[in-house]
Amino acid sequence: MSLRSPSLTTRRLETLSDGVIAIAATLLVLQFGRVHLRNDEGLFHALRDLWPSYMAYVVSFAVIGLIWVAHHTMFERISTVDRPLLFLNLALLLGVAFIPWPTSLLADFIRDDNFNASVATAFYSFTMTLIGLVFVAMWAHLVRHPERTIESVTRVQLRRSLRLASVSPIVYGATIGLAFLSPYLCLVIYVLLAVYFARGPSARGLLTTPENKAETDDDR
Amino acid sequence: MSLRSPSLTTRRLETLSDGVIAIAATLLVLQFGRVHLRNDEGLFHALRDLWPSYMAYVVSFAVIGLIWVAHHTMFERISTVDRPLLFLNLALLLGVAFIPWPTSLLADFIRDDNFNASVATAFYSFTMTLIGLVFVAMWAHLVRHPERTIESVTRVQLRRSLRLASVSPIVYGATIGLAFLSPYLCLVIYVLLAVYFARGPSARGLLTTPENKAETDDDR
Amino acid sequence: MSLRSPSLTTRRLETLSDGVIAIAATLLVLQFGRVHLRNDEGLFHALRDLWPSYMAYVVSFAVIGLIWVAHHTMFERISTVDRPLLFLNLALLLGVAFIPWPTSLLADFIRDDNFNASVATAFYSFTMTLIGLVFVAMWAHLVRHPERTIESVTRVQLRRSLRLASVSPIVYGATIGLAFLSPYLCLVIYVLLAVYFARGPSARGLLTTPENKAETDDDR
Amino acid sequence: MSLRSPSLTTRRLETLSDGVIAIAATLLVLQFGRVHLRNDEGLFHALRDLWPSYMAYVVSFAVIGLIWVAHHTMFERISTVDRPLLFLNLALLLGVAFIPWPTSLLADFIRDDNFNASVATAFYSFTMTLIGLVFVAMWAHLVRHPERTIESVTRVQLRRSLRLASVSPIVYGATIGLAFLSPYLCLVIYVLLAVYFARGPSARGLLTTPENKAETDDDR
Repeated sequence: MSLRSPSLTTRRLETLSDGVIAIAATLLVLQFGRVHLRNDEGLFHALRDLWPSYMAYVVSFAVIGLIWVAHHTMFERISTVDRPLLFLNLALLLGVAFIPWPTSLLADFIRDDNFNASVATAFYSFTMTLIGLVFVAMWAHLVRHPERTIESVTRVQLRRSLRLASVSPIVYGATIGLAFLSPYLCLVIYVLLAVYFARGPSARGLLTTPENKAETDDDR
Repeated sequence: MSLRSPSLTTRRLETLSDGVIAIAATLLVLQFGRVHLRNDEGLFHALRDLWPSYMAYVVSFAVIGLIWVAHHTMFERISTVDRPLLFLNLALLLGVAFIPWPTSLLADFIRDDNFNASVATAFYSFTMTLIGLVFVAMWAHLVRHPERTIESVTRVQLRRSLRLASVSPIVYGATIGLAFLSPYLCLVIYVLLAVYFARGPSARGLLTTPENKAETDDDR
Repeated sequence: MSLRSPSLTTRRLETLSDGVIAIAATLLVLQFGRVHLRNDEGLFHALRDLWPSYMAYVVSFAVIGLIWVAHHTMFERISTVDRPLLFLNLALLLGVAFIPWPTSLLADFIRDDNFNASVATAFYSFTMTLIGLVFVAMWAHLVRHPERTIESVTRVQLRRSLRLASVSPIVYGATIGLAFLSPYLCLVIYVLLAVYFARGPSARGLLTTPENKAETDDDR
Repeated sequence: MSLRSPSLTTRRLETLSDGVIAIAATLLVLQFGRVHLRNDEGLFHALRDLWPSYMAYVVSFAVIGLIWVAHHTMFERISTVDRPLLFLNLALLLGVAFIPWPTSLLADFIRDDNFNASVATAFYSFTMTLIGLVFVAMWAHLVRHPERTIESVTRVQLRRSLRLASVSPIVYGATIGLAFLSPYLCLVIYVLLAVYFARGPSARGLLTTPENKAETDDDR
């Protein structure tokens, strides 16, 4: 029982984080502004030509959803929040709240045949890399301060979480360069990375309580 | 007592969902942008001419409200969330967060005498159909995995919920085609469907606790 | 103890309502768009000329804050939610979520010397009147169904709440007509009405728990 | 135990406040509108030229984060909310919800070589000064009414919090004048002030529970 009762600050930080994450996800829709048809263009073609916006909407929504999963998986293992965790978490929220803008840039410029498509894609990758680095910094802090986690969490598990979290900034970081070769290939990688995390142990972490972790480790 | 204590994940998923649903409902108002009067047009006429926007606002607000009711009715019956439910729920939120945009398209184009009115209406119907299908997939998953629900819920009840949920994508799906015959008739059907669900057993489900379900079944 | 434990639905309805109310209040700021200076106009004058927007922002924020107070005062007295209460509450939220738009209309048109200022003001009053009527309908429902309230609440108290709630639509309703005589006088009345409710027994209701109601009634 | 159980109103006021704070922080991103490239301008240069917007985004996000920290530090010490606290808190939220607009003004005008840059900066400082004054008024109210706080909080501690809170309006107030000498120097001060509060005892207050306050006072 006592293994699972987070401090007041922990609960509040989760509430604030859930709020910001939910709002950022919902603001993604604002990239779809009012549709102004050019003369004798039909609405059907206008809607069809917005496909990069739908795609960017789905990808960013999935990313934000997976950030929510990863955030909860982390906070289920934290018992007390110290100052570095508090401010790293605010930095994370600063990044998450920013996502709607690179998303709308990506949708607006991905079809440009030139340098602009690459810049918009690199900017998106850069934002995601920074967010990923904040996650890495948080897990690294927990590895150095295991007394901040609940008792059932071992140092080995924290190290594994740290390694898993570092996948995200490494892959996103690589797509910053790749954006200048092929923006569309970056999109494919964004989708694959989302699928990887959706299937991966992070989401499993959320669905199993830390107490029956042993059981989970068995069925891997 | 134990029948009703949802897991940590269940509670958090509800909080996230409530957040996204509340925000999507409140963002509907942003379709009403700044009013720019054309020369010697009065504000009164400008406001009167916005009637499709008021109507679309009310219809979509009602739909989102009913989605909230249906979502809670479902989650009151779920005891543990597994990975398919987690990601189906995120897909549901992706759809709900999208609603403000088809709503504003519907309001902007319903009065067009031509094909565009039909396209905007069909797009609205299509969005609602997809949302309805996600609900169906969630209930279907629960029918196949009754161990995810609280003990007092029977397989018969789950099947009934599945049948009820399938009304929505069937009717909305039919209005995708109907939109090309008469967009206004689609509006009438949207309203009737909302009334059906508002009066129907889904809302009743929310208002009765699963424990006195028997009693509810009696007064049907 | 049992006097105060609301049902699951009651708590969730409050959460949804709090979300919509908080979001509507925060969206008020979006009426302040990007400032575009006309040639050789200074920013100082542009900001000064926006005074109707500041005023409308403060008035509507106060109104939404008081709606929040009134809503909680009511729900502290409700033990179970039935279907009419559920849908009246959704109608209330539909009205509250709409407030940012009449607010921005009021700010944009109040300075017009002509009919448009009156129309914008009347539209604002009309919106507030409808919201007030929903509150009246909710209290009237509770007067007819006192079994929905917690035990310590008497029918006399419910009647008093109903009378108090009816002040709002009566006064706002009167300003619909008054808007065509003097929009500015309406603004004064909006402020006075907010002060009345801020000082009045509704806010007091929130600050005292129903259990020591007797004590409160004494010091009146 | 009883030291820490806030009244119903306290909890709800915190929920409302958390909601408004989370939404205001997330709306900051809307200052980044759609990017329209002027002829033969590249996206890279357009994004680079937006540096004042990034800076304003980070500064305001940090300020809102610190307001959240300060707000929770205060409410952890409050046991019951009276009417002045209720309405001071609503005034605080009115200020916080307003922050996105001065932020976007600051970003849009800081690079102007003339008076407008000073006006935008002074307007930002003015908004923050008002918010700071509301915090001062709240702590001053608690100093005069220590019976509103939990038992473990002493009058000495309340006075110290009041002194600390008054740093903010004094410094921000001074930057109103300074804005007319050097807007950029004001930016530096905004950052330094944020660092001061992030490192300061207010954040520490959040991270320590009132019960082991003594321990905290020792390690100062």
